[in-house]
Amino acid sequence: MKKADKIYFGGDYNPDQWDEQTIDEDMKLFKRAGVNLAVLPVFSWAKLEPLEGEYHFEWLDQLIDKIWSHGISVCLATPTTAQPAWLSKKYPEVLPVDIAGRKRTHGMRVFFCVNSLKYRERAAAIADEMAKRYAHHPALAAWHVSNEYGTSCYCPTCQAKFRLWLKKRYGTIENLNKMWHTSFWGRTVYEFDEIMLPTELNDDYRFNPVIQLDYMRFLTDSTAECFENEASVLRKYNPEIPVMTNMSGYIRKLDQRVMADHLDMVGWDNYPAPTDPPYFVAMKHEIMRGLRHGQSYWLTEQSPNQQNWQPYNKLKRPGEVRRLSYQAIAHGADTCLFFQMRQSAAGQEQFHGAFINHGGHGNTRIFREMTALGEELASLKDKVLEGRIQAKAAILFDWNNWWALELSSGPSQDMDYLKLISKYYQAFQEQNLPVDIIRMDEELEKYDLVVAPLLHMMKENIGERITGFVEKGGTFVATMRSGIADEENRCIFGDYPGPLNKVLGIRVEETDALRPEERNMMELREAFGMREKSYACDFLCDLIYPEKAETLAVYGQDFYKGIACLTRNTFGKGKAYYIGTNPSEEFLKEWVGNLCADCGIMALYEAAEGVEITNRVSQKADVVFVINHNQEKAWVDFKEETLLDLLHQSEVSGKVSIESGDVLVLERK
Amino acid sequence: MKKADKIYFGGDYNPDQWDEQTIDEDMKLFKRAGVNLAVLPVFSWAKLEPLEGEYHFEWLDQLIDKIWSHGISVCLATPTTAQPAWLSKKYPEVLPVDIAGRKRTHGMRVFFCVNSLKYRERAAAIADEMAKRYAHHPALAAWHVSNEYGTSCYCPTCQAKFRLWLKKRYGTIENLNKMWHTSFWGRTVYEFDEIMLPTELNDDYRFNPVIQLDYMRFLTDSTAECFENEASVLRKYNPEIPVMTNMSGYIRKLDQRVMADHLDMVGWDNYPAPTDPPYFVAMKHEIMRGLRHGQSYWLTEQSPNQQNWQPYNKLKRPGEVRRLSYQAIAHGADTCLFFQMRQSAAGQEQFHGAFINHGGHGNTRIFREMTALGEELASLKDKVLEGRIQAKAAILFDWNNWWALELSSGPSQDMDYLKLISKYYQAFQEQNLPVDIIRMDEELEKYDLVVAPLLHMMKENIGERITGFVEKGGTFVATMRSGIADEENRCIFGDYPGPLNKVLGIRVEETDALRPEERNMMELREAFGMREKSYACDFLCDLIYPEKAETLAVYGQDFYKGIACLTRNTFGKGKAYYIGTNPSEEFLKEWVGNLCADCGIMALYEAAEGVEITNRVSQKADVVFVINHNQEKAWVDFKEETLLDLLHQSEVSGKVSIESGDVLVLERK
Amino acid sequence: MKKADKIYFGGDYNPDQWDEQTIDEDMKLFKRAGVNLAVLPVFSWAKLEPLEGEYHFEWLDQLIDKIWSHGISVCLATPTTAQPAWLSKKYPEVLPVDIAGRKRTHGMRVFFCVNSLKYRERAAAIADEMAKRYAHHPALAAWHVSNEYGTSCYCPTCQAKFRLWLKKRYGTIENLNKMWHTSFWGRTVYEFDEIMLPTELNDDYRFNPVIQLDYMRFLTDSTAECFENEASVLRKYNPEIPVMTNMSGYIRKLDQRVMADHLDMVGWDNYPAPTDPPYFVAMKHEIMRGLRHGQSYWLTEQSPNQQNWQPYNKLKRPGEVRRLSYQAIAHGADTCLFFQMRQSAAGQEQFHGAFINHGGHGNTRIFREMTALGEELASLKDKVLEGRIQAKAAILFDWNNWWALELSSGPSQDMDYLKLISKYYQAFQEQNLPVDIIRMDEELEKYDLVVAPLLHMMKENIGERITGFVEKGGTFVATMRSGIADEENRCIFGDYPGPLNKVLGIRVEETDALRPEERNMMELREAFGMREKSYACDFLCDLIYPEKAETLAVYGQDFYKGIACLTRNTFGKGKAYYIGTNPSEEFLKEWVGNLCADCGIMALYEAAEGVEITNRVSQKADVVFVINHNQEKAWVDFKEETLLDLLHQSEVSGKVSIESGDVLVLERK
Repeated sequence: MKKADKIYFGGDYNPDQWDEQTIDEDMKLFKRAGVNLAVLPVFSWAKLEPLEGEYHFEWLDQLIDKIWSHGISVCLATPTTAQPAWLSKKYPEVLPVDIAGRKRTHGMRVFFCVNSLKYRERAAAIADEMAKRYAHHPALAAWHVSNEYGTSCYCPTCQAKFRLWLKKRYGTIENLNKMWHTSFWGRTVYEFDEIMLPTELNDDYRFNPVIQLDYMRFLTDSTAECFENEASVLRKYNPEIPVMTNMSGYIRKLDQRVMADHLDMVGWDNYPAPTDPPYFVAMKHEIMRGLRHGQSYWLTEQSPNQQNWQPYNKLKRPGEVRRLSYQAIAHGADTCLFFQMRQSAAGQEQFHGAFINHGGHGNTRIFREMTALGEELASLKDKVLEGRIQAKAAILFDWNNWWALELSSGPSQDMDYLKLISKYYQAFQEQNLPVDIIRMDEELEKYDLVVAPLLHMMKENIGERITGFVEKGGTFVATMRSGIADEENRCIFGDYPGPLNKVLGIRVEETDALRPEERNMMELREAFGMREKSYACDFLCDLIYPEKAETLAVYGQDFYKGIACLTRNTFGKGKAYYIGTNPSEEFLKEWVGNLCADCGIMALYEAAEGVEITNRVSQKADVVFVINHNQEKAWVDFKEETLLDLLHQSEVSGKVSIESGDVLVLERK
Repeated sequence: MKKADKIYFGGDYNPDQWDEQTIDEDMKLFKRAGVNLAVLPVFSWAKLEPLEGEYHFEWLDQLIDKIWSHGISVCLATPTTAQPAWLSKKYPEVLPVDIAGRKRTHGMRVFFCVNSLKYRERAAAIADEMAKRYAHHPALAAWHVSNEYGTSCYCPTCQAKFRLWLKKRYGTIENLNKMWHTSFWGRTVYEFDEIMLPTELNDDYRFNPVIQLDYMRFLTDSTAECFENEASVLRKYNPEIPVMTNMSGYIRKLDQRVMADHLDMVGWDNYPAPTDPPYFVAMKHEIMRGLRHGQSYWLTEQSPNQQNWQPYNKLKRPGEVRRLSYQAIAHGADTCLFFQMRQSAAGQEQFHGAFINHGGHGNTRIFREMTALGEELASLKDKVLEGRIQAKAAILFDWNNWWALELSSGPSQDMDYLKLISKYYQAFQEQNLPVDIIRMDEELEKYDLVVAPLLHMMKENIGERITGFVEKGGTFVATMRSGIADEENRCIFGDYPGPLNKVLGIRVEETDALRPEERNMMELREAFGMREKSYACDFLCDLIYPEKAETLAVYGQDFYKGIACLTRNTFGKGKAYYIGTNPSEEFLKEWVGNLCADCGIMALYEAAEGVEITNRVSQKADVVFVINHNQEKAWVDFKEETLLDLLHQSEVSGKVSIESGDVLVLERK
Repeated sequence: MKKADKIYFGGDYNPDQWDEQTIDEDMKLFKRAGVNLAVLPVFSWAKLEPLEGEYHFEWLDQLIDKIWSHGISVCLATPTTAQPAWLSKKYPEVLPVDIAGRKRTHGMRVFFCVNSLKYRERAAAIADEMAKRYAHHPALAAWHVSNEYGTSCYCPTCQAKFRLWLKKRYGTIENLNKMWHTSFWGRTVYEFDEIMLPTELNDDYRFNPVIQLDYMRFLTDSTAECFENEASVLRKYNPEIPVMTNMSGYIRKLDQRVMADHLDMVGWDNYPAPTDPPYFVAMKHEIMRGLRHGQSYWLTEQSPNQQNWQPYNKLKRPGEVRRLSYQAIAHGADTCLFFQMRQSAAGQEQFHGAFINHGGHGNTRIFREMTALGEELASLKDKVLEGRIQAKAAILFDWNNWWALELSSGPSQDMDYLKLISKYYQAFQEQNLPVDIIRMDEELEKYDLVVAPLLHMMKENIGERITGFVEKGGTFVATMRSGIADEENRCIFGDYPGPLNKVLGIRVEETDALRPEERNMMELREAFGMREKSYACDFLCDLIYPEKAETLAVYGQDFYKGIACLTRNTFGKGKAYYIGTNPSEEFLKEWVGNLCADCGIMALYEAAEGVEITNRVSQKADVVFVINHNQEKAWVDFKEETLLDLLHQSEVSGKVSIESGDVLVLERK
């Protein structure tokens, strides 16, 4: 597989919007800024194929040659995210039907039915044209299939394919009835043709947690097929070129794990809200890295300045793009790409930031920042490429579990898996305790500590695997809403937490839901290293009845005052904890710290609060990233270790000061 | 008519979800808990009739025999709330069209067009099968038709039937034009076929208060017909078995009074929000009891523990289900039934509370509470059955009035009839002053005091009847927004309050609407027993010009300072009051107390605040219920009277202490 | 053109709702109140044409004669706002398709497709009937075409006509692609038939700022055609009768400037929310007056008392209607008309205020106020008619700019052009500094000072025209978001503010968006007459780099602290200011005051705060209006000037006291 020898720096370029003179000026500006990769032609289908089967690639040939002549590689995108208007008009079947049952009309982008045969035929055809032409072009760094998949569709084709998908999954209608537990509310079906897609027309999309769950799986599978439809064409011409797609920052809709299994590497677009704290952005990087078991990935898009579709589009502060870029690399990105290289004159994103803004020259704050960043990244050469994070702690995260949790009606409308996961991640990240976010099918034995917040859905034998992991000496943490349901979101009979009962040594009888303004307290039986004996908790309160487990804390209020809320079970050579509620950040931070210490997991280095530290190890180098997210100067203490500051080519050791917003990239010896 | 000899205790059971072994275990648990009635098979249409006209009742035969063999009666539900998927597929006409004009697809339950001939044909057929089979089964306690009716439909059948309904109501198109006052906004029609259903497609559902009013009446009539379609079949086989349906707790949509006229007894599902105060729950019982002129009713559903569809589903606190159950009985319920007996594995309500939860055993807090409750209820035998509340005060409540008030545009968007009615009810209930909530056609002369808040719509000759009631010595209270419109919601010309002008002795010229943050004051001319001379009021302010009436209070602020807001008119042998605004709770409590004292209406017993007392009198016994809703111990004073405590089989008299949340059931001698 | 010789006083009358006796009583009451004009028959199409082509005008003949026999003129409305139900039924094409793609059903009013040929045919036919009959009736004062146009439609006819409209506008598809910049997101089209209307079905209505912009222009043009369809018929019979329509108070949807070019005079309906401050109501008058370059206009509707469709419909306070009526006249209205003369019995507006309420008599507060007002207005005779405001300052306001600003995505979701314009207007109005609100094509040289807030869209050569205006000595003020885009909403390349660069002497590189709770500060370099050196600002912050301009103020906070936020450029004989942010009201008031003083623009008279003063000059008289909007008594100082108080027929001069809510109408000598 073709590999990069540097950090790719550049991004989306839409040359079909510009005349030749502008393109020539852009080339000069790109060179000045150190750009070495352009992603294109994401939106050029209508230009490349103005009539069905009539292709006009000459302009693109010339353009790629011109770009390459400036030493810039290309990541070639199949332009299938925006089908031409003639295609929608000639074959209306390519247009989606929405959840309200409305046939859509042509417009926008990512606005097609992923199951449309005609769409797939035409998409494969243009991918074939592109691959035939460019698969061996020396400028070609990677293939980028389409763009930010994620359109739902409820058209007759999808209806028919959903029934086939179900038939394949369940075999017989009897089995489907059983697995869907259709006896509830008299939903028994006698033929697959009686099954309707879950939409607003039957309200099953929100009131039937199992049909909707399967629809989301079906949509993921269909989207993956749609990707594969093009990817297989591209691979045919030159298997050496890696194929990916840029996954949307909005990650709930499609099970990205399924998508990732089809990619040669993960690519994703990072658009944090201006209010997202650093740990939340870091968590997304961790999730995306985990999709392919820790493999480094492509940061395919981020904004060089303000966005245009946030409620309030703040300017990126001086240094902010640099910090976000290094944070991405620190967590596993091998590229630093942007949307977009030149600001569009019109359309929905005309006020989105760009390398080159409407002014059209490089005499801007942002262009100067980009230029400086390009220079720095070039100086890192290939040292961090393919470098991996080495963590002994892991947080389990799963899309099916996410959907099932949030599709379930009750106990609280505020169920937000990502937010709850993020609290656990935060406790690790803000103490610089290295942690992976892993798939449910990851090998647990790679870790000393596994935390599985809200493990509602028991699938992939996870109950047995966790039991085995603990038995062999692992430390495991479960929380409220665990061990509830099977893969079809059917509750597992017997006491909660079902298959985790034994390893946790408890049963949970009831769960109380607290209103947002309500709190309960966790009263610790013993301090075991915590600073306080009492911590606030909220959201949900599981009433835990320990069977073999030891009670570490009890509720301090309400009718279940005195009932266990935190337990520990020694099982085999390991330990299994259950946290029956949603503890305060303060509790989690201290408690996770203690737990890691117990497991021998330590922060990479001591540092001031708000300083993020990660470490990527490749065959070439062992590189440490230090990012000061504070508004003030801070410190990190390398003690006796001496490291090479790659950005300043100097040696550092001992307690080192780091400016507000600054970044250190250090090579370990 | 077959009558119960005990309080039925049990509820909805869905045995088609369970295997035989589970059912056998359930039987044992039911016996242990004192269950004596099961409601079934609410959702089994698809199982009972897998193909059109092909019935499979054998499993149900066996099940009913098994249940009966455990001494448990059954309330048999026709399973027509959830038509089979094959029915929707074969005859799409059974599926509703929604208010947005969208044809629905199969899903959910209560998801059919009540006017569909095919639905009615198939529903009557399966009802016939059931009745033929079980009408004389000794286990059969009552028939339960379908479930929680309330689906609107705007399909072509409904469109056609609505026109026929209008033709029947109005006779000629000329008369309809007149009654609908179509000259407004040029809406004259020349044929019934020009009339369109009020939907989102013409916005008439919210901007045409008369068409929408008639649609709601039509929907109620259609639903009643749909009920009758099955009920008549059931009655044919054994007229001795009472027939009802469980009416939804959401009671605005259908005029339940019309429904009630078709039932042998009222049945209703009580699902209070966790934040509903006790008086609000009590009021709903009162309303439901009033539907059949005070006849005792069935509490068909309540939850044994948390619900799943509230925003925050709190556990029922220890004793809470018991308290709610006795409150129902205290207000007229003859049964204590629950949804559901066993918690479902899957579907929308998989996390709804049940007698037996997912654990599957009786070793739970809730099961123990249920068992204790079952035992207590059994000890009451048939003493309270058919017992009636004896009240001399009444509050008038009417669905047509409700709709008309809230459909009218202006004077305030905050018009909420139920909430305003509840303030008056609260003033009675929290002082334990017995009060009925009555239909507009109830005989007023049964009462000494009649309060008719917001009597916007004058129908059923109510103006004359009230005038006569007062003339003969009754005391009557009217409020703002009274005497405004006729049965078609046309304003009655001449000064407000139209037909109540004479009895009230006033005219109302204008009504000011206050924003939520605004207040005015009621300044009393004389204290007449009130503690203050000045009370806050809000929402609406009628400017009252007394003609014969005496001014009791005037507004204290704004340009209408000094204008009357509370008047009293002596008329014949009685008195008629008009409250032109929305007084504070404080005012209402004191004022209603004084008014009752004037009318010789007294609290049953003196008690601490938060203690609810009611009294049901049957031919067998005179039973008093005392419920302490407080978080603390409280008291009730029986003075010299000695009563028999039925739950403890002891005598009580004098000032008695009652624990927080506790209940006394006492027989008067 | 037929002209009025008095202020028309009266309003909408719907006699088809009433019987003859009621009408006769109304005539007496109208006479008593001084009514001299009735607007009718706005909603009588169904009555006038019960069958296609069969007209029944006899009742209207008689009615007009009867009205005229009481000395009351009529403004005759074509009744085309509410087509008969038979028309919708027979020709469903007249019904609109909404933005969600739903075919509407008959109902409401203004509920037709403005492009429907059948609608236009039938509307022209009934207009012809009316004109034939009444064009020379002595009672006829003016024609009133239809009512409050403003229905969007997305039906196939509109789809086809939109394509033709685009073809006419752009000539070729190549040019359309260029002007729409379709290369963004791959939206290139190859035939006009590939273009779809912007709707919810493709989300282009909110995500494609150029298609939606053209749709809004198309809708305006279509509506103007629809108006002209009737107006041309009316003019044919008697060109002396002026033709207008009543434009809705909701003025964003249609470019009222285009509409105004088709009218003989502007007519508009003034329905302020109870919370609208006086300056906001005044601004709407100013906008409407500016539509026809300062020509006086008709106030076609206002409410005599409460409305019914506000959230909280407050009674009009004593004197409030009088004050609003004089405010209208003070700003250019030649009429004082109301909706409605008699309160409707039923329908959506049954609780809307009227001259004569449901009581049906004149013994009401409102009727008495109306009578007094009628008497006063009669005493003014024709003195104010056609009088003009003489202002040397102007604020530029444009519908295309409004749409483009708010359709653009970013930088802030809170973009509200009207609100931001109103802040500048308020600064003038609350200091009684005479200011016009002008069209973008108005002659700038008529003014000494032109303020153009948020001049995002550069069209009609406005850049050059402003440059010329300043060069010749004018003073010009621009703000953030200026000079951004061309007429197709395409950004103009080169630095902002594009064509205004030169005259303003600055470039703007970036714009920061502040969240609602955020503030920055404007730090003045010098006080230049301001009371403070530092003022708050918010919303958006342009980062200004002065090229020739002088920096007057800089930001006080954030990373752009010290960067210019307010500049002044001396250019030719004039000055051009740029305010890069949204300053506080306080700043604007002082600053606009200083600016006006610089330009020699003075308040008409000195007066207490909250006293509004305007001045209309006609060939007959020079009349000053003084309105005290305060809750308290206030003053105005005429110094040595002596004026004739027209309402009291007395002379005033010096410092004069004016009661709370009172009005003075004074003739200058």
